[in-house]
Amino acid sequence: MALIIQKYGGTSVGSIAHISAVAEKIISLRALGHQLVIVVSAMAGETDRLVQLAQALSATPHPREFDVLLSTGEQVAIALLSLALLSRGCAACSYTGAQVHIRTDSAHNKARILGIDSTKIQADLAAGKVVVVAGFQGKDDAGNITTLGRGGSDTTAVALAAALNADECQVYTDVDGVYTTDPRVVADARKMPTVTVEEMLEMASNGAKVMQSRAVEFAGRHNVPVRVLSSFQEGTGTLIVNNEANMQHRAVSSIAFNRDEAKLALHGIPDQPGVAAAILTPLSDAHIEVDMIVQTMSGEGTIDLAFTVHKRDFAVALIILEDVAKALKAKALMSDQYVAKLALIGVGMRSHAGIASQMFQVLGREGINIQLISTSEIKITVIIHQKYVEQAVRALHDAFQLAVETETEGAAEGC
Amino acid sequence: MALIIQKYGGTSVGSIAHISAVAEKIISLRALGHQLVIVVSAMAGETDRLVQLAQALSATPHPREFDVLLSTGEQVAIALLSLALLSRGCAACSYTGAQVHIRTDSAHNKARILGIDSTKIQADLAAGKVVVVAGFQGKDDAGNITTLGRGGSDTTAVALAAALNADECQVYTDVDGVYTTDPRVVADARKMPTVTVEEMLEMASNGAKVMQSRAVEFAGRHNVPVRVLSSFQEGTGTLIVNNEANMQHRAVSSIAFNRDEAKLALHGIPDQPGVAAAILTPLSDAHIEVDMIVQTMSGEGTIDLAFTVHKRDFAVALIILEDVAKALKAKALMSDQYVAKLALIGVGMRSHAGIASQMFQVLGREGINIQLISTSEIKITVIIHQKYVEQAVRALHDAFQLAVETETEGAAEGC
Repeated sequence: MALIIQKYGGTSVGSIAHISAVAEKIISLRALGHQLVIVVSAMAGETDRLVQLAQALSATPHPREFDVLLSTGEQVAIALLSLALLSRGCAACSYTGAQVHIRTDSAHNKARILGIDSTKIQADLAAGKVVVVAGFQGKDDAGNITTLGRGGSDTTAVALAAALNADECQVYTDVDGVYTTDPRVVADARKMPTVTVEEMLEMASNGAKVMQSRAVEFAGRHNVPVRVLSSFQEGTGTLIVNNEANMQHRAVSSIAFNRDEAKLALHGIPDQPGVAAAILTPLSDAHIEVDMIVQTMSGEGTIDLAFTVHKRDFAVALIILEDVAKALKAKALMSDQYVAKLALIGVGMRSHAGIASQMFQVLGREGINIQLISTSEIKITVIIHQKYVEQAVRALHDAFQLAVETETEGAAEGC
Repeated sequence: MALIIQKYGGTSVGSIAHISAVAEKIISLRALGHQLVIVVSAMAGETDRLVQLAQALSATPHPREFDVLLSTGEQVAIALLSLALLSRGCAACSYTGAQVHIRTDSAHNKARILGIDSTKIQADLAAGKVVVVAGFQGKDDAGNITTLGRGGSDTTAVALAAALNADECQVYTDVDGVYTTDPRVVADARKMPTVTVEEMLEMASNGAKVMQSRAVEFAGRHNVPVRVLSSFQEGTGTLIVNNEANMQHRAVSSIAFNRDEAKLALHGIPDQPGVAAAILTPLSDAHIEVDMIVQTMSGEGTIDLAFTVHKRDFAVALIILEDVAKALKAKALMSDQYVAKLALIGVGMRSHAGIASQMFQVLGREGINIQLISTSEIKITVIIHQKYVEQAVRALHDAFQLAVETETEGAAEGC
């Protein structure tokens, strides 16, 4: 008998039929003797409906009241799933975040979990009930309802798994696991049986939307084994592990990419303290998030600084940069919104030299020019023209043999 | 400066435009220096939507989980109203029933309020905030969410008024007050400036749907002055008072009627203990509610017992009664579903003799046959053929001069 936390996202509980299917799945698993705590998100579309209501009243809804509003979405979902379980004769009990004392700080709309009182949940589990908990929400010490921000239900599930010392936290999504790269681009992209927390984090920031980074990070910090699975098809999904000792000795495990970024670069700016801040602060003041930042020397005591922003912020960022360039007497301001970002990821890189040069050789052979390079311990990121992104991903997936399963990986398969 | 509790029903907050209008109204009243606590129901249609979701999963939804579901309706409404107030620069704070500790018993779907902790509300009022509280809901001592049943938001408002010792509890509805009778039937039906708690209770059971009986009763018991007003037009509404000393010295204050009932009667049944129970228990077992019950002697040691049920229950009640009549050896079973109930109501009746005979004379002059009569201290109820109901109401409204305002009533006007 295991204690399993399962999290179902909005699509998984998006209709009465889907909720019924989730209830059936829960009942089969319970029949095997497992104890189950279920975390649910709001039904797909419900959060959008609530946001629209709020925005019809206020362009910038008051954070506290916005949380009171948004948290109803998950409350509806826990009640409906519990009703579905009860109507099938399965003992169940639902709880809002406040009811099981999911304590958070008071940062409305993006609160962080500080603790969970698992007394009620443990009593219900001991009494043979399936416990259904609202994701995404908690309360602060003053009793105000808080929400955890995007992907908060994942964090709720992981935090519950940590508090209850669960055997596994299963996150059900609309994909059946984490892939070596986007299967829509590379036909033989392979579902990975395991991935490390660090790799997941590097992938998430590159647009792999399987699970929220905060939840992955939380899982890593509290050593919670998380499995990503599909609500809609059978399978063992991908297990996110904390310890890279469990991992295959592969240098590169996956390739992430996105086409949402635009590049901006200042050439020939004075090499003096405070220059980077002088460039980036006006952007941050305009609420423009800067992603990749690369700085190099350009000779003659000047430097070049390049970075990427989301394509939707490109026009505004360019206007701001024109003023900055003038003020800093930059020799040139360059920009390109037709770029894509591409990254090789793998904890194995740490122990494998030459991955970067191998990557650049592959791109060179394909005739693809590299505009920017940035590296971390387990990731090599490049900016290239966006028209080459699919070609580049396919060539790299092939060159690093990501479609081929290793022996170790085969053994890790199976739940 | 007064402390005023206002309650807005589902129609009053049924759309973003309506919520905005309510916010404007609140802000104008606050500008006069009053302290305000606002109780809201779910947006019109929302409760029905939630009920349909639940019923799609379970014909008889589990009461605890049903409450978790239904209570979200009011939570959405408090958040939206607070957002509307805040976006207009009016300090406001919303609370669910649980957050302000509206303690109830554990009778899910029809819980009763046991107490309210007004600490938070008083602190907010002192800080100059408008406090917005979810109607219809509370929590039991185990922390479970409960709902108060139909019209529960009225009870929340009255209970808050009692707990906070408010100067007035204003209940906003879609009518502008309590009328001497239905204005759709009698053109010169008059809005009453005051009505007593007892009269309201007698009217409610006769189908006057202005305010829930439980809330009226609660107001009477705790001596809370309640004013019924329209959300959609200006006016001073009707004040429900506990003390009849405030009242005009009028014998009859209003006429209530409904066409929803059907009559059943057993003639010539043995006059022995337990007979009434033998007749009514099988109906109650079939969940059929019996309204008016009249028993008389028919001579020869037998009695007649007549009563009314809702027209929708008529057919089933008749089948049950056929068995009962046989078992009791009744001489006859009579039934009529084409009846209407009509009642004269007034606390002044207590001190005025001859109201009943005056009523019967009026009906006699109109050629209207009376089928059943039942009286209480402040009400005389008759059953007549339903085709005469409008004629009877008009004749009685005229005979008792209900359209004419007395001097005392004129003085009671004005808030």
